[in-house]
Amino acid sequence: MVPEVLSQPAEAGGSVGIVTPQTIVIDTPLLLACGRSLPRFELVIETYGTLNAARSNAVLICHALSGDHHAAGFHSADDRKPGWWDSAIGPGKPIDTNKFFVVCLNNLGGCRGSTGPTTINPETGALWGPDFPIVTVRDWVASQALLADQLGIDAWAAVIGGSLGGMQVMQWTIDCPTRIRHALVIAAAPRISAQNIAFNEIARQAILSDPEFHGGRYIEAGAKPERGLKLARMLGHITYLSDTAMRARFGRILRDGDGQYNFNYDVEFEVESYLRHQGNSFVDRFDGNTYLLMTKALDYFDPAREYGDDLAAAFRQAQAKFLVVSFSVDWRFSPARSREIVNALIAAGRDVSYARIDSQLGHDDFLMPIPQYHAVLRNYLDRVALEVSL
Amino acid sequence: MVPEVLSQPAEAGGSVGIVTPQTIVIDTPLLLACGRSLPRFELVIETYGTLNAARSNAVLICHALSGDHHAAGFHSADDRKPGWWDSAIGPGKPIDTNKFFVVCLNNLGGCRGSTGPTTINPETGALWGPDFPIVTVRDWVASQALLADQLGIDAWAAVIGGSLGGMQVMQWTIDCPTRIRHALVIAAAPRISAQNIAFNEIARQAILSDPEFHGGRYIEAGAKPERGLKLARMLGHITYLSDTAMRARFGRILRDGDGQYNFNYDVEFEVESYLRHQGNSFVDRFDGNTYLLMTKALDYFDPAREYGDDLAAAFRQAQAKFLVVSFSVDWRFSPARSREIVNALIAAGRDVSYARIDSQLGHDDFLMPIPQYHAVLRNYLDRVALEVSL
Repeated sequence: MVPEVLSQPAEAGGSVGIVTPQTIVIDTPLLLACGRSLPRFELVIETYGTLNAARSNAVLICHALSGDHHAAGFHSADDRKPGWWDSAIGPGKPIDTNKFFVVCLNNLGGCRGSTGPTTINPETGALWGPDFPIVTVRDWVASQALLADQLGIDAWAAVIGGSLGGMQVMQWTIDCPTRIRHALVIAAAPRISAQNIAFNEIARQAILSDPEFHGGRYIEAGAKPERGLKLARMLGHITYLSDTAMRARFGRILRDGDGQYNFNYDVEFEVESYLRHQGNSFVDRFDGNTYLLMTKALDYFDPAREYGDDLAAAFRQAQAKFLVVSFSVDWRFSPARSREIVNALIAAGRDVSYARIDSQLGHDDFLMPIPQYHAVLRNYLDRVALEVSL
Repeated sequence: MVPEVLSQPAEAGGSVGIVTPQTIVIDTPLLLACGRSLPRFELVIETYGTLNAARSNAVLICHALSGDHHAAGFHSADDRKPGWWDSAIGPGKPIDTNKFFVVCLNNLGGCRGSTGPTTINPETGALWGPDFPIVTVRDWVASQALLADQLGIDAWAAVIGGSLGGMQVMQWTIDCPTRIRHALVIAAAPRISAQNIAFNEIARQAILSDPEFHGGRYIEAGAKPERGLKLARMLGHITYLSDTAMRARFGRILRDGDGQYNFNYDVEFEVESYLRHQGNSFVDRFDGNTYLLMTKALDYFDPAREYGDDLAAAFRQAQAKFLVVSFSVDWRFSPARSREIVNALIAAGRDVSYARIDSQLGHDDFLMPIPQYHAVLRNYLDRVALEVSL
């Protein structure tokens, strides 16, 4: 019963319709990179499409910094917005749910239902809050491997992710080489730069220094570090759009039509209005402690580190085939960063295809239905064989 | 009596030595762009070198966002650091005080002694604080023209500035064409972009949303918006260095030598340490209300606006000769922005030289003694004639 609003142009494929998240309880202890361990944890997931009898058509979608398990479809007929990657996932879409069984989860440490700072620590009976361990991309892959076990999936036909999601894809190929056949690494980087860390650090300081942070125990204090979280998100958005895209979209347009300057600090330029809106709406849906640990997972990601700073050596562990995609005007993780990944894969003797998409927005392009981009995804995934001798 | 510490390599020129700021009282009313007016104001200045009998050798230095009147020399023999542009100003230096009488001021609205938020509003007897009017680059030029009157300077041999200082130089050529013979516009832009405004807006929101801001009346409240000001400065520093420079300088180096991640939010990467230090030291020397109005002056600067958005039409008012300088890795005001200035000057039929300096840091390069850069300044200024028929 897909509501009328869900209908899309035929060429774009259809909607997965109404979907219901499920909570998967994982009772296997998980030792984390920080040295602590979780005896038990829960992951909230959504699935689209049907797992085939051979269990060979499963695709894992890994989310980025502020993403969650709700990648496609709607939660109710009243929903105004579909999942965050609805443009790419559905029947007839590039990640075709007629062919694949698609799984998306809220990562460990997230704030949309999976075990994390906003859930109860069973040892204390209180909210985890700031005591939840800082997790790494490697920890996420380990938790996702346990999820695959639980779902009876020996190997993913593909693991797909953009940005921080793409980093999880790379880690999958290194840590669980026999369990991933195709790795789609989109708008990612082999590790983040000093400038990227600098942006993350300012976002963290905005949250940590907010008097409403209360050492991370803000929920118990009946508070929320809204100002810090808002600043962090506004800052993020600067890095999601290119200078050129911001110019094209906002320029120096003033919100008031009279063309006069305000001479005060109220919202004045269109770009200010956009940023404040993005900041305010983020505060309603996200958690400060989760934001902190997500940025730290980004900072820490560096798969070459355990291989003598040699990314090719890391990728020599991999068995998957790779598709690497970058976007021309992405300045957060520029095409040059994707080329570093591609060059290391080539040096490691891996099978890799690379597409640099001419784009207009910036880092956000990985979420956009750019025809050339979707054609690349579709063509690659159409050729993924499901008859596999394991 | 120049202390030993001031001695520099012969080729770099000497120091102006110990300098003493002066306060200039201007009793001429100043009508501001916002519609309000100041009946009287004070500007703190420093001067280096000697005004010649013809009063034809005066050079005005305009400061950038967080600069002040102390551009060269030392305030006492104990001073550890000289003025902010000491590398370029002094006997035998590119801005040679053996030839020129150099004037630098703290701009109106500043926080280093000139009339601004931290001074007393004579009408109320209280601190100006947030009631101080938001001033524009045009207002600054008008106030600097009144300063020139007071100093008996009919025309500047040159007006020189980097970044926001360069914007004042451009405005001088348009608003007071007969009073500026040479315009040195360094690392500037004809107006700032949506991305620049976005950075400024986040900096402002950090200050305005700090609970210690108290609606701008923090001094009376015995408080200071330190957290906001610190965040604003950290953010600024991201735009002062290029991605490449940050990579070269900090990379992903960890502060602790053991090479292990902390798994907490203490300072961990070198770049975090750098940013926190920059933020903390700024809080000690700067004022929140001044930071707010300085960023707004940047946002508002747009000399083409009153000329049908035609920068060349604006520059048709100018009579000065121009030197425009940009730095290859500056991404705040990139060489492309300087080219916009140069192209408009050419279209306006003005006399313009342009140098794009190969550099390594980013926007901060305009403060650095890069040999090629200083040679360009020196060669240009050496040819500035002082025998002028006015």
